Amino acid sequence: MTVPSIHPTAIVDGAATLGSNVTIGPYTIIHKNVSIGDGTRIGSHCEIGYPASNPAHGGILAIGKNSHIRSHSVFYEGSSFGENLVTGHRVTVREQTLAGQNFQVGTLSDVQGHCTIGDFTKLHSNVHIGQESRIGNCVWIFPYVVLTNDPHPPSELRMGVVVEDFAAIATMSVILPGVTVGRGALIAAHSSVSRDVAPDSVVAGSPAKYVCDANAIKMKDGTGAPAYPWRRHFHRGYPSDWVVQWIHEFHGRD
Amino acid sequence: MTVPSIHPTAIVDGAATLGSNVTIGPYTIIHKNVSIGDGTRIGSHCEIGYPASNPAHGGILAIGKNSHIRSHSVFYEGSSFGENLVTGHRVTVREQTLAGQNFQVGTLSDVQGHCTIGDFTKLHSNVHIGQESRIGNCVWIFPYVVLTNDPHPPSELRMGVVVEDFAAIATMSVILPGVTVGRGALIAAHSSVSRDVAPDSVVAGSPAKYVCDANAIKMKDGTGAPAYPWRRHFHRGYPSDWVVQWIHEFHGRD
Amino acid sequence: MTVPSIHPTAIVDGAATLGSNVTIGPYTIIHKNVSIGDGTRIGSHCEIGYPASNPAHGGILAIGKNSHIRSHSVFYEGSSFGENLVTGHRVTVREQTLAGQNFQVGTLSDVQGHCTIGDFTKLHSNVHIGQESRIGNCVWIFPYVVLTNDPHPPSELRMGVVVEDFAAIATMSVILPGVTVGRGALIAAHSSVSRDVAPDSVVAGSPAKYVCDANAIKMKDGTGAPAYPWRRHFHRGYPSDWVVQWIHEFHGRD
Repeated sequence: MTVPSIHPTAIVDGAATLGSNVTIGPYTIIHKNVSIGDGTRIGSHCEIGYPASNPAHGGILAIGKNSHIRSHSVFYEGSSFGENLVTGHRVTVREQTLAGQNFQVGTLSDVQGHCTIGDFTKLHSNVHIGQESRIGNCVWIFPYVVLTNDPHPPSELRMGVVVEDFAAIATMSVILPGVTVGRGALIAAHSSVSRDVAPDSVVAGSPAKYVCDANAIKMKDGTGAPAYPWRRHFHRGYPSDWVVQWIHEFHGRD
Repeated sequence: MTVPSIHPTAIVDGAATLGSNVTIGPYTIIHKNVSIGDGTRIGSHCEIGYPASNPAHGGILAIGKNSHIRSHSVFYEGSSFGENLVTGHRVTVREQTLAGQNFQVGTLSDVQGHCTIGDFTKLHSNVHIGQESRIGNCVWIFPYVVLTNDPHPPSELRMGVVVEDFAAIATMSVILPGVTVGRGALIAAHSSVSRDVAPDSVVAGSPAKYVCDANAIKMKDGTGAPAYPWRRHFHRGYPSDWVVQWIHEFHGRD
Repeated sequence: MTVPSIHPTAIVDGAATLGSNVTIGPYTIIHKNVSIGDGTRIGSHCEIGYPASNPAHGGILAIGKNSHIRSHSVFYEGSSFGENLVTGHRVTVREQTLAGQNFQVGTLSDVQGHCTIGDFTKLHSNVHIGQESRIGNCVWIFPYVVLTNDPHPPSELRMGVVVEDFAAIATMSVILPGVTVGRGALIAAHSSVSRDVAPDSVVAGSPAKYVCDANAIKMKDGTGAPAYPWRRHFHRGYPSDWVVQWIHEFHGRD
């Protein structure tokens, strides 16, 4: 076992648990309720394990092995992340966020907690995930998207958004409270989605309306092949056995 | 009087005025023109009292007692806040912001200064308040809302937005320069508001148009009671005498 | 030559090159691949010269003289900026960003790298510049604007946006992949732009449509003079010989 590499300016609570080969950057604060897996790197100016306002929502913050949290990020206690978490800069993730493996969160994104997120899901920059959201596996959410939860703000009601596996939500779209975005659906940029979106369909506009089935969108790479389901052609970063299966699913008879 | 609790890594100018029981977190900088009320907590990595570009807009930054400024926030000199200010992380508040008591500012929100804000007004995450905005009491502004001010950008004209008491502006809406959002009005999510909005009315769309009176929106909690004015049902965090009055106003004959 | 003024808490790699009169704020990190011009000020809590994920995109980060980078900003290695760069707080600028002189980047803006930016171009707060963007001179981009690049996300294709000289893109607009915004064009607030925009024209809406020629918009200052091209009336911060030329161009016969 290799001892952690903690920058001398970092402040690490003695009660925190750090795996082997963990790296902690300058000016970063690690609170007590934190467990960091082997090989994980935490950048500079972060605060990890920030106390939850409500202690009942606190507890251990578990960060999986081989993760990378970039600078100026804040993670609250009381959440868990599988291995290979990767973040941009200045990410905020609040308590009671339960995420799977290979979760990516871009710069400035704000996960408000009390939500579940599957495996291999990716939030680009500046995404806002409201409380009570339930996000599946292999979901893509692009910059300036907001998942809301309050049906008549302000109120005490919370109706979280559901985003099913393989869905993609393009830039600057709002998903209204209680909406389900179906498996493999595509929300076009700058949309406001007030109704459930059928699997493998495309909606656009404000309020968003059905445009076409997702597989009617063609690649702009000159092939004219269907651009969706995106796992037909986009494989970077996924497990090789999944990719093999996807190739077989879509190209087995080619 | 209890002496302030200043983390040894914090940098506090000797000319700053700190009340009793003030807490200053690690790696935080407090400049000279700062007066912090009793019982206020400032988190880590903040810079408080940042010099205004124009010294004529500088002067004291006064932060009321029992406030809580979370990590990575930047407050400029030359502003004032009543007691019980609460912020999220990475808030920016520039010079000449005059806010009342119990002001809340969510993570990443950016108050550009030269504006007034009443009591018990709440900005959620990632709200942008342009210069010359005038915001009343008990206003709610939700994520990714922008209050603009330049009628034909770029120009030297500034026509600030006015938001009256009890109004609510939902996620991802833009309020165009010089617009007044009337008392108790509701701006639906993802709207662009180019005309004044009548009190207690609802507008939606881009450009936003009248939808209905606010009290025509029903609670989704199973009661079907009117959801607006929201002070009919939402009371968390307001003074008890206000809440008693609101209950009497709306439910006195129930 | 005056020696740099480096705060004792800053961490400056010995291999970094700092010009005369450079100022480095508290808790700021300067990596090795950095060259900072004379008279440049770097605020607190920054990280400058952050390593690129792909070393092939790394190399020197060159920041021109008399620049001012405000607190909590992150600049990656492998980019260059002319003199008089000015940033707000918490700016992120990634590798392979090539910007001219007098570039301004507002608070929270996120320049994703692999892009070119001309002289005297200004990004207001919270602007997102996707990779492969090409932005001309004297461009204005207002808060919460996103320049996208992926025509059917997620994919490996990148079709960057082109923004020509003197164009202005108002708040909360999305420019879709591959679109060219013509010289002097104006994109109204809260628009989604899917087609090329002709020079000196105005588009609005989602999807954005032609509204009028830009010079049909009148100043709201009481004169009723054309508000566009904005260089008719807005001169603050531009070189005096340019301003003289602009005055001659538009007012020579007055």
